Amino acid sequence: MNPIRPTIPLDLPGKHHGFLRLPYSRNDSAWGSVLIPLTVIAGEPGPTALLTGGNHGDEYEGPIALQQLAWELEPAEVTGRVIIAPYLNYPAFRAGTRVSPIDGVNMNRCFPGRRDGTVTQKIANYFDSVLVPMADLVLDYHSGGKTLDFLPYAAAHYLDDPAQQAACVAAMRAFGAPFSMMMREIDAVGMFDTAVEAQGKVFVTTEIGGGGTATAASTRIALRGARNVLRHAGILGGEIEGAEDSVMLDMPGDDCFHFAERDGLLHPLVDLGEEVAEGQPIARIWPADRTGIAPLEMQASRPGIIAARHFPGLVQSGDCLAVIAMRA
Amino acid sequence: MNPIRPTIPLDLPGKHHGFLRLPYSRNDSAWGSVLIPLTVIAGEPGPTALLTGGNHGDEYEGPIALQQLAWELEPAEVTGRVIIAPYLNYPAFRAGTRVSPIDGVNMNRCFPGRRDGTVTQKIANYFDSVLVPMADLVLDYHSGGKTLDFLPYAAAHYLDDPAQQAACVAAMRAFGAPFSMMMREIDAVGMFDTAVEAQGKVFVTTEIGGGGTATAASTRIALRGARNVLRHAGILGGEIEGAEDSVMLDMPGDDCFHFAERDGLLHPLVDLGEEVAEGQPIARIWPADRTGIAPLEMQASRPGIIAARHFPGLVQSGDCLAVIAMRA
Amino acid sequence: MNPIRPTIPLDLPGKHHGFLRLPYSRNDSAWGSVLIPLTVIAGEPGPTALLTGGNHGDEYEGPIALQQLAWELEPAEVTGRVIIAPYLNYPAFRAGTRVSPIDGVNMNRCFPGRRDGTVTQKIANYFDSVLVPMADLVLDYHSGGKTLDFLPYAAAHYLDDPAQQAACVAAMRAFGAPFSMMMREIDAVGMFDTAVEAQGKVFVTTEIGGGGTATAASTRIALRGARNVLRHAGILGGEIEGAEDSVMLDMPGDDCFHFAERDGLLHPLVDLGEEVAEGQPIARIWPADRTGIAPLEMQASRPGIIAARHFPGLVQSGDCLAVIAMRA
Amino acid sequence: MNPIRPTIPLDLPGKHHGFLRLPYSRNDSAWGSVLIPLTVIAGEPGPTALLTGGNHGDEYEGPIALQQLAWELEPAEVTGRVIIAPYLNYPAFRAGTRVSPIDGVNMNRCFPGRRDGTVTQKIANYFDSVLVPMADLVLDYHSGGKTLDFLPYAAAHYLDDPAQQAACVAAMRAFGAPFSMMMREIDAVGMFDTAVEAQGKVFVTTEIGGGGTATAASTRIALRGARNVLRHAGILGGEIEGAEDSVMLDMPGDDCFHFAERDGLLHPLVDLGEEVAEGQPIARIWPADRTGIAPLEMQASRPGIIAARHFPGLVQSGDCLAVIAMRA
Amino acid sequence: MNPIRPTIPLDLPGKHHGFLRLPYSRNDSAWGSVLIPLTVIAGEPGPTALLTGGNHGDEYEGPIALQQLAWELEPAEVTGRVIIAPYLNYPAFRAGTRVSPIDGVNMNRCFPGRRDGTVTQKIANYFDSVLVPMADLVLDYHSGGKTLDFLPYAAAHYLDDPAQQAACVAAMRAFGAPFSMMMREIDAVGMFDTAVEAQGKVFVTTEIGGGGTATAASTRIALRGARNVLRHAGILGGEIEGAEDSVMLDMPGDDCFHFAERDGLLHPLVDLGEEVAEGQPIARIWPADRTGIAPLEMQASRPGIIAARHFPGLVQSGDCLAVIAMRA
Amino acid sequence: MNPIRPTIPLDLPGKHHGFLRLPYSRNDSAWGSVLIPLTVIAGEPGPTALLTGGNHGDEYEGPIALQQLAWELEPAEVTGRVIIAPYLNYPAFRAGTRVSPIDGVNMNRCFPGRRDGTVTQKIANYFDSVLVPMADLVLDYHSGGKTLDFLPYAAAHYLDDPAQQAACVAAMRAFGAPFSMMMREIDAVGMFDTAVEAQGKVFVTTEIGGGGTATAASTRIALRGARNVLRHAGILGGEIEGAEDSVMLDMPGDDCFHFAERDGLLHPLVDLGEEVAEGQPIARIWPADRTGIAPLEMQASRPGIIAARHFPGLVQSGDCLAVIAMRA
Repeated sequence: MNPIRPTIPLDLPGKHHGFLRLPYSRNDSAWGSVLIPLTVIAGEPGPTALLTGGNHGDEYEGPIALQQLAWELEPAEVTGRVIIAPYLNYPAFRAGTRVSPIDGVNMNRCFPGRRDGTVTQKIANYFDSVLVPMADLVLDYHSGGKTLDFLPYAAAHYLDDPAQQAACVAAMRAFGAPFSMMMREIDAVGMFDTAVEAQGKVFVTTEIGGGGTATAASTRIALRGARNVLRHAGILGGEIEGAEDSVMLDMPGDDCFHFAERDGLLHPLVDLGEEVAEGQPIARIWPADRTGIAPLEMQASRPGIIAARHFPGLVQSGDCLAVIAMRA
Repeated sequence: MNPIRPTIPLDLPGKHHGFLRLPYSRNDSAWGSVLIPLTVIAGEPGPTALLTGGNHGDEYEGPIALQQLAWELEPAEVTGRVIIAPYLNYPAFRAGTRVSPIDGVNMNRCFPGRRDGTVTQKIANYFDSVLVPMADLVLDYHSGGKTLDFLPYAAAHYLDDPAQQAACVAAMRAFGAPFSMMMREIDAVGMFDTAVEAQGKVFVTTEIGGGGTATAASTRIALRGARNVLRHAGILGGEIEGAEDSVMLDMPGDDCFHFAERDGLLHPLVDLGEEVAEGQPIARIWPADRTGIAPLEMQASRPGIIAARHFPGLVQSGDCLAVIAMRA
Repeated sequence: MNPIRPTIPLDLPGKHHGFLRLPYSRNDSAWGSVLIPLTVIAGEPGPTALLTGGNHGDEYEGPIALQQLAWELEPAEVTGRVIIAPYLNYPAFRAGTRVSPIDGVNMNRCFPGRRDGTVTQKIANYFDSVLVPMADLVLDYHSGGKTLDFLPYAAAHYLDDPAQQAACVAAMRAFGAPFSMMMREIDAVGMFDTAVEAQGKVFVTTEIGGGGTATAASTRIALRGARNVLRHAGILGGEIEGAEDSVMLDMPGDDCFHFAERDGLLHPLVDLGEEVAEGQPIARIWPADRTGIAPLEMQASRPGIIAARHFPGLVQSGDCLAVIAMRA
Repeated sequence: MNPIRPTIPLDLPGKHHGFLRLPYSRNDSAWGSVLIPLTVIAGEPGPTALLTGGNHGDEYEGPIALQQLAWELEPAEVTGRVIIAPYLNYPAFRAGTRVSPIDGVNMNRCFPGRRDGTVTQKIANYFDSVLVPMADLVLDYHSGGKTLDFLPYAAAHYLDDPAQQAACVAAMRAFGAPFSMMMREIDAVGMFDTAVEAQGKVFVTTEIGGGGTATAASTRIALRGARNVLRHAGILGGEIEGAEDSVMLDMPGDDCFHFAERDGLLHPLVDLGEEVAEGQPIARIWPADRTGIAPLEMQASRPGIIAARHFPGLVQSGDCLAVIAMRA
Repeated sequence: MNPIRPTIPLDLPGKHHGFLRLPYSRNDSAWGSVLIPLTVIAGEPGPTALLTGGNHGDEYEGPIALQQLAWELEPAEVTGRVIIAPYLNYPAFRAGTRVSPIDGVNMNRCFPGRRDGTVTQKIANYFDSVLVPMADLVLDYHSGGKTLDFLPYAAAHYLDDPAQQAACVAAMRAFGAPFSMMMREIDAVGMFDTAVEAQGKVFVTTEIGGGGTATAASTRIALRGARNVLRHAGILGGEIEGAEDSVMLDMPGDDCFHFAERDGLLHPLVDLGEEVAEGQPIARIWPADRTGIAPLEMQASRPGIIAARHFPGLVQSGDCLAVIAMRA
Repeated sequence: MNPIRPTIPLDLPGKHHGFLRLPYSRNDSAWGSVLIPLTVIAGEPGPTALLTGGNHGDEYEGPIALQQLAWELEPAEVTGRVIIAPYLNYPAFRAGTRVSPIDGVNMNRCFPGRRDGTVTQKIANYFDSVLVPMADLVLDYHSGGKTLDFLPYAAAHYLDDPAQQAACVAAMRAFGAPFSMMMREIDAVGMFDTAVEAQGKVFVTTEIGGGGTATAASTRIALRGARNVLRHAGILGGEIEGAEDSVMLDMPGDDCFHFAERDGLLHPLVDLGEEVAEGQPIARIWPADRTGIAPLEMQASRPGIIAARHFPGLVQSGDCLAVIAMRA
């Protein structure tokens, strides 16, 4: 049995703030624990939504929106139940890192986790085996983190079950991000997305900005999206806002991704949201150790719109420099 | 005598790419050196400009613009001499950190350096005692680095000598950044700025973006600014571009700076460039370890425009959250 | 087959000091090994006792008592055999840490280990598959380590086999610690205790003090206990000393454990061995970053005697602050 | 001028909680600060007491007593002023380490500090140049920290000025610790003690327990001592409690200190507070890497009472194993 | 399916330089990759040789020889195909360490690897499942690395299949190192050698020098050996050079290996290649912490020739001090 | 006054082994010390020789020879006094690093040290102010350490005082290394050599091998050299051995030193002791991140003999690749 225990009831009406407690013995605390913050808000009977942020620890729009929502949402507004976990990979969130500082595990590649595994695997297993089964709809927030930057979008996957896919697409559209992205995961093994979809649930994910920061604008997108999705699910009342203006995008294949084959200083020539033609120079890589050497110039391998970009000023060989999407 | 030696001539016509070599004995290289890239481009007799980036190692617009300039500028275009050091604190630049990983020294607080000091102090001393004296004008690039984000501006200081100040202001305006900032340094001890100004030179500095990244837009500002300043100094021919649209700003006092008094998750309520009224909420700080607690709300202590902001999604007690400037 | 080999015979009469040699290839020694100290003392035919310390590397009473015993015990005194391993998790002992610095594994949660696993798993597997099968009785020393502090007690588990449990209880009483504790492990998976008990052996464990130190008083308890247990087993002659005064305790359930839900500075209000009433304040947690804020006050959730306490002056959210036992 | 600024008034009646703000630019916060908690409580005119803890960051009785005092003391009780800084070396306190993690400086060897020095030196300089001059009496708490353990005592130094020494001794006796120690510092350069005494102030210091923990008993000694000293100074009313029972001790010379000349596992033979004869064995050091080797045995070089001891279970060559004091 | 993809064709005629790209998401690059350099040179149809270096990251003769070979070998010279991977454990090679800095895995103990494992395991799995099956002959270079030093030899294993063993021995002799060694692996689990031999391939390995350096002489041995082996395989034309002078050695058993049982300063008494008699002193270990103590003296446990030695000046308990081989 | 105290008498006849004790307070030992091993052997009245090794912590011939000498030399053999400090920078020696792990200071650039400085500076100051003044002759051992490799030589400096220089040269020749080197230090500030020579003493230094190892052959050179120098000084009797065969070398200027201007994999083309012509290729630097790129080739800038070389297989930009000396 998974060793995690909630310190609050998961199935009682009202609003409860508490923790998931995971025993974790270590050098600096022989009988210590990881306490993962959790809020459950339940009103009249109805569907359950599970809202998660911090799947990667350096992505901030989700945690901010979910803290705000956990603070301001009241049981009287809710038909059904909202389970809010702003920091899914809590140790990574506290460290401000993508993966957990405890075990080095990328949470979004370790589902369904293991109940006798590492800290990250135990958390994944608890969500997979206890919380996801309680939910009708799961919204999992992502942003670019410290090393990537994205156009703000909500996303849905191409799925084998057309009805499930349609339900996911409808929820994605309801979110109302400036962009909406259809994605076909090449290697979906271990993703939270896959684990949730495999249980037949409605699943929406996002990429909203990046760089390890959040802005007033990006957090407003995230918060409006959460309320919109809850309205779409019938858990909150009121009208969905701003969803009609979302631009539909698609990432059709591997040639969308552009990788660096040299270390150096990154000189971007186009920015997020700009249209590029095939063969257009999109970046130069200057050597970091000398002057007077021609830069390596990268060209767009396909036409489209810059949907993601490498964030840090220095680039390492093998890094993804840019992703070019196309309008759907 | 300072132990640094250039591997190229500093005073010959033509274009030379090389290094400043600083002997540095250490565990992983008993007889090692730090090689700081340097380019010198000299044409017909005329004034000397010293262009420096990487004073802080995580600020990228200067290094990119100076690599590009060192690559494309030809002696035939130059009247006088351009000395280009894209990475002033080279060890910090390679590490992608504000201060040097070798000695932990903030280069911009260690001038005039020491010839028998640490690596950073020796570099500072070499610039202060050898390269700055050769120059008529010094342009030193800064951006916000990994933890701050700025409106793009060139800046000049209030100086005791009105003629020198006027020359600096003219060069700052020539740079042609979207914003131009007059600054009164409270604590100028150890700054490169102060060391250069003390030698009676024309000095321009900048803040262009931040977050430890650079964009196509921000690098264009940096590169245009370098060319504009060289034109202004008579070293390059051609017209100054785009300088007329710069917005003049001022940072009049300590109350421009807003500091966090709590650790937590930063929820920004206004963005860079937005106008705020006195008392207007500008940010919330949510607790990082639990839900269900009211956030700390920060208000603007004066009206103005948001000119700088804390970048990382997590904030530490004592961090500068925002700087509010006023239009001059 | 487990790659560990002893450098001394395990089954010959006399007294042999040597090592268990475990090949361990690593960056700083391509063909290196871990050498785990071992002493075997055998006299006339009789039962075998396996005495182990250093299961956790920062607990010292066991290693001291076993060094002393390995030094002073002579074959002529022994009927049977005594196998002494003062430092079960030898790499952790040398580092002064609870878990191994090599693989981060908590030895007392990795039994029965793996012969093709990490260093800690290989050691566990060797004891489980080679040394424990040779033994009739196993005494494994524990103390609180650097982060916990305990009343000094020997302990036995509630077992399914009443005869085995009785044999263990008799050995625990023979140890003669100031306190004797009956324990029901909630989660016994991976413990050395469980592995030994599963082989039908008589097993005694201890908790003697803590804090990562040892005192003259606590080491005397440990050494007397070893001699008492060997007398009880018929391996040593002479009378058992001081066992009649031991106070019997019990840890009946989860509500014995009190966890912190806030980081801060720990202000204890009661000490080890003191009696508390239900609801009595036992500790305050002051904020570590400011003055003038009310502390969080923790109350006893049940009446009893303080049997264990958090040791470090700072407390982390999730740490066990105190354990309240009751007199049996 | 020292760059530290208080966020609260130091000289107004009432009770103010705030910080000393020290600007500290670094990789993870370009415009960051260190915020050192401070409380000032002022009532009717009268003398000023400066109470400090956390001079070393792993000593806890002072911080706990001062947090409690800052919380519960009211201006109406106070004649004069009480300035409370529970965490003098705040970065070390947060790290739980003796010296600062920022600069590695031992605060109690860096007075009078430097206003343009490292973080620790700037803090020392601020206390030396701003807060100590405001005070009539300074009480600075110490304990043994993570590596030493002490009998609980307050202490005063032998001073050149008999009147100042008498005033310090009177305050030490008023503190009312179980023991009171007269000390002659061999090497007093850089100590806070010396800096305060050099300004002609009344100074009391303490050693209360150790090991990096605090107990209910030790914190009660610390808190009672603070109240007693404030009563002694006329700042608080009421009777001094428990001072008459204090045992007077003296540390007459270098032969009080016993140092290890071998690494190993420490086997103590006597405990804190026990009387020893000259030549009596006080500890054994067992080898950490093998069994079957005779331990090194340490003898008392003089008769007396064990006043301090090495705390960790492992000992390093050169460590102080024990201090033997004599009854005055 | 293994996630590694080559960026060049593996089966086309001509000469292609590129990479094996392994996606590797991490804190400093969310969508990063490891790019393992690879060269494929194919001419007229014929056999395939796979040449690998950098199995351990601190062994340099193989990488140098393979860089040189990849640079100078032309398709016109080749009958068949040569696949060159100079840096098998590329992350370890870049770090200059035996095992990978990413996962701590010793590549030569992790075959056949795992396609869903750690970075090192994925690389091993790609070679085992994709590249080795393409090859008729595999030559894998080793040297002593930073902690061992070897006589320069090529080696073959005793195998169950006499025909395969004969083919391996013939290739080993063709290599033409100064020494040739027959080896019986006691524990061959996880070795690249074993994985290749299990696929029925001809396999040659080497040990050429050590200490984490390479000399002009040792690199010439390595380069000549590669060319000789390719000639032997019929892939290159020309005569095998220098193979007739190789001295045949054998490592018959466990008693060839001499291990230290004490830490200290290593005082070697015989050098590589010297003959020793049984019982002859081969090294002293002096204590590192004092003078005036007799050193531990190690004797040869068998007669023979010193074929390998501990390299660093300090020795740790458990290290292999020397290997004594015998002439075949 | 320097805080270091010897635990043995420095001026009594006989043989004493002990320590220099330097108090060093730190996180892991509040009242700890550094114990630097020291042996003093005094016989009939006569001159004093100070023999030191471990000035850099990763150079081993000196420490081995001095341990052996301290062990075997008897007062009856000695006319005068021999002071032996095998590990001058003892913390660096224990860490196996060139510079001290405590303060990062290169001992051979910090003389005359500071009595109130860091640990390394205090040690330097003690030798400079206490031990060197007692000596008539100082022999300080060096080798290449982990990153350089040298021909084995003793060395003397060109000095302003011809008589002192002649005395040093005579002692250097007496040492009897295979090579003898005259050196003109360009930057002698802070060297032990300079500090000793400035006191008018006879000074000999060495470079014997390198790479962080020692061989039987190199330790024999070191030990014979010590005995020869003591014979030369009249402290030991007997004949000087093997000095007549030493080859005289000279390092006339800066162009002896060859520095890398690129990172990469070092491919040496000539070895230590080989003669090279001006312009002869001596090494290639291959890129570490790809195949198929031409290497950078380094040529000899002057004719001569390779006297020193870069040791590690990887080279960093700025490293010294080789030193070419000429026969005197």
